[in-house]
Amino acid sequence: MWKPDRSAQTPLYQQIVEHIEREISYAVLPPGSILPSERKLAEQLGVNRSTVIQAYEELRASGLVESTVGSGTRVSLTKWGISPTNTPNWRQYTEGGTFLPNLPLMRRIREVTLNDASIINMASGELSSDLFPNDIVNRILREEPFHEHLGYDDPQGYSPLRKSLVESLKQYNGIQTTESSVLITSGSQQSLYLITQCLLSPGDAVAIEDPSYSYSLPMFQSAGLRIFRLPVHEDGIEPDDITNLYRQHRIRMVFLNPNYQNPTGTTLSNSKRMRLLKIAADLRIPVVEDDPFSLTAFDDSVPAPLKSMDTDGSVLYIGSLSKIAASGLRIGWMVAPKSVIDRLTDARQQMDFGLSILSQWVAERLITSGYFDRHLLQLRQALFQKQQIMVQTLWDTLQERVSFVLPQGGLNLWCKINQSIDDAKLLEESIKRGVVFVPGSVYGSEQGFIRFSYAKPKHEEIQAGITAFSQALKRF
Amino acid sequence: MWKPDRSAQTPLYQQIVEHIEREISYAVLPPGSILPSERKLAEQLGVNRSTVIQAYEELRASGLVESTVGSGTRVSLTKWGISPTNTPNWRQYTEGGTFLPNLPLMRRIREVTLNDASIINMASGELSSDLFPNDIVNRILREEPFHEHLGYDDPQGYSPLRKSLVESLKQYNGIQTTESSVLITSGSQQSLYLITQCLLSPGDAVAIEDPSYSYSLPMFQSAGLRIFRLPVHEDGIEPDDITNLYRQHRIRMVFLNPNYQNPTGTTLSNSKRMRLLKIAADLRIPVVEDDPFSLTAFDDSVPAPLKSMDTDGSVLYIGSLSKIAASGLRIGWMVAPKSVIDRLTDARQQMDFGLSILSQWVAERLITSGYFDRHLLQLRQALFQKQQIMVQTLWDTLQERVSFVLPQGGLNLWCKINQSIDDAKLLEESIKRGVVFVPGSVYGSEQGFIRFSYAKPKHEEIQAGITAFSQALKRF
Repeated sequence: MWKPDRSAQTPLYQQIVEHIEREISYAVLPPGSILPSERKLAEQLGVNRSTVIQAYEELRASGLVESTVGSGTRVSLTKWGISPTNTPNWRQYTEGGTFLPNLPLMRRIREVTLNDASIINMASGELSSDLFPNDIVNRILREEPFHEHLGYDDPQGYSPLRKSLVESLKQYNGIQTTESSVLITSGSQQSLYLITQCLLSPGDAVAIEDPSYSYSLPMFQSAGLRIFRLPVHEDGIEPDDITNLYRQHRIRMVFLNPNYQNPTGTTLSNSKRMRLLKIAADLRIPVVEDDPFSLTAFDDSVPAPLKSMDTDGSVLYIGSLSKIAASGLRIGWMVAPKSVIDRLTDARQQMDFGLSILSQWVAERLITSGYFDRHLLQLRQALFQKQQIMVQTLWDTLQERVSFVLPQGGLNLWCKINQSIDDAKLLEESIKRGVVFVPGSVYGSEQGFIRFSYAKPKHEEIQAGITAFSQALKRF
Repeated sequence: MWKPDRSAQTPLYQQIVEHIEREISYAVLPPGSILPSERKLAEQLGVNRSTVIQAYEELRASGLVESTVGSGTRVSLTKWGISPTNTPNWRQYTEGGTFLPNLPLMRRIREVTLNDASIINMASGELSSDLFPNDIVNRILREEPFHEHLGYDDPQGYSPLRKSLVESLKQYNGIQTTESSVLITSGSQQSLYLITQCLLSPGDAVAIEDPSYSYSLPMFQSAGLRIFRLPVHEDGIEPDDITNLYRQHRIRMVFLNPNYQNPTGTTLSNSKRMRLLKIAADLRIPVVEDDPFSLTAFDDSVPAPLKSMDTDGSVLYIGSLSKIAASGLRIGWMVAPKSVIDRLTDARQQMDFGLSILSQWVAERLITSGYFDRHLLQLRQALFQKQQIMVQTLWDTLQERVSFVLPQGGLNLWCKINQSIDDAKLLEESIKRGVVFVPGSVYGSEQGFIRFSYAKPKHEEIQAGITAFSQALKRF
């Protein structure tokens, strides 16, 4: 993203003027485009608001932009002062479309983390860079010869990677499958997207956990699905609730994250797993098992995935490297009956023609590298330590003002604020103090919950971030 | 894909039995799943039909599968002979979904090319492997240190790549833009997909060329768009046709491929470009300019892109590395007004969380490598030669039975068969003889046209492929 050059001779406001002139001249900002508010642009560029005010004044003086009270600053329709130009009504186009925009709170969080590299990020669901297997990836790139074909690959995914996943799914997750039953996707996100687009139709009812990561994804609404909720208890959802939802609403699919559920961190008990599979089979309802966190387990108590017990083919299993290796590789997978894989492969070919062979090749080399086990062990230990630091700092700074249940794996701590609070306001107060997290309402929970991720911030940032958060909270 | 091992002791039919037993046991083929027909499975596995018949007989004898006349062979519902199992009605799910499957002819072509590596492929729109910049990519991987962050990247795309594209768009295409106006996508395909999902709504009318690559993409139908056609002449579409379509149907967007149009190879004349931009501005209709082929131009007569003359911001420009470097990198880009880029970035984050940093990094290094110009020059010369070989062979073998207009760039020759013919039957006849192409009806053209791609087959394959095709044609 463009930022003014503080070491240049040209004053900052003048650089901003020239930058916007260029954007208008190249139709990056066509006539009629709305410019960001002065406050927002100042935040984006990291300058004083007065600098932006001065820049906008100069642009107004030249006639390139015009301001009206209430509707902000726009690029003039009579560009460069000549006759009025015609341009598509882009606002109408961008406000239309079947696919819905992200939730405003999520866009706010993304904006803040993109613009301000110094903010302590307890919102992101990714690992900190020191937890990535950087050394293994670099060694692969440097030392292993890349001989793969640079053309379109099979849209179902690079065959050696699917073969290696068949092995590792067996070894790590107890799941038995074959190569034809595995689809490589751009992370778990694309698996979910393909399911909502290809196996469900507008008006279909589906059940998700409450609260749930799925709730934060407008893709469910974009697909026109009716969403019903399964409350999450300390040992996960109540399987019999599915029967009730089915009787009332004919739900056609259930979406679950049984291990270290996002955001609550809870794990579905073994007895409930058996009951759930029985109910799903009786009602003939597919269960989507989103399982990003199993390999982050702090101890050996993690239950086996539903898919490992799925003799009937009711479970669509989703996994990914994002939370256990590196999200930037964009490697996820789905294990499902062949007919489902074929349908989804056909669709994804139309959407993006499959993934880059490069990242699939690196992922395959990484999984089979012989260093992967050690990497996972170090990762689990590091996450456990980070969780401890977060918890200790919360106790030290906030005592009985917050409460939580300790998850035994995953990246998130689900924290209840023991007072009535507006979580959007608490977020803004915290951003001012240099820390960002995800308010619970994003996941559809009642007010007063927060998802803190301990994966992305470094040790010392966790302490500083929780301390800053506690100061923000004390303002209420 | 699994194939029986011809060097093993176990008979082929027995290997097939064991493979299918495993797939049934792992619920890759859940109870009720339909097995491929004997003919089709034989083709997939490269064995005699009698071998498959024997395998299915054994599976029937064990009770694992059952056959009924008319509806083929299925996995038994009473799996392993115990009580009937319940499993989701996967057929109902896979036949539903908002997103439509590929056209049957396109699925047939994909099936044939995936199963039979020896077939001469004049259907694929990709380069042959000797035309990829393999040496440059390998040098980058081996020699350039990879220091990029392995986490989630900006979903708009890797910033250094967007910066380099701003430079190369100026240098190669005469397009002036800024980094904030560029979105990196998984090839052109994803740009088109994002546009149909985010800027248009069900029921909206759009105009596409006739014939057109867009016609082969069910994504337009999946988005619920009403499609109207602009006939393509030797110098491209008639811009005034847009006005007529607008008056009748209120079309909201126009999709064009002005240089070496896919499939016809025609180029929109300069005078028509000016007229088109005027009409688009007057009617305030956005024009999507799909431009995969400009840098394959055989000479310097290629007109400048519409985007380079687009002072009003009416044009959404789409480019890609797929046809000029390597499709397997999955790197495409869109240049559009900032508000459009922001909307599409938000949506793609929800769909796939952005592209892998690895392929974006390699693409950036490739474009700026200093070898890229030489690569493009060699590519253009090679494509020109391949086109010449194809044309010479067509003349030699079919004389006046076919006719065509020679395109001055691109990867395709659009060939008219000068006799009445069913192009699907001609395709099957050709597949039998070891060559595959795309029948014109896939692109919405009248019967009797064929798209031959000369990019993917090697020199000697072009001669053999056209000869095989001419033998197939002579059967009619």
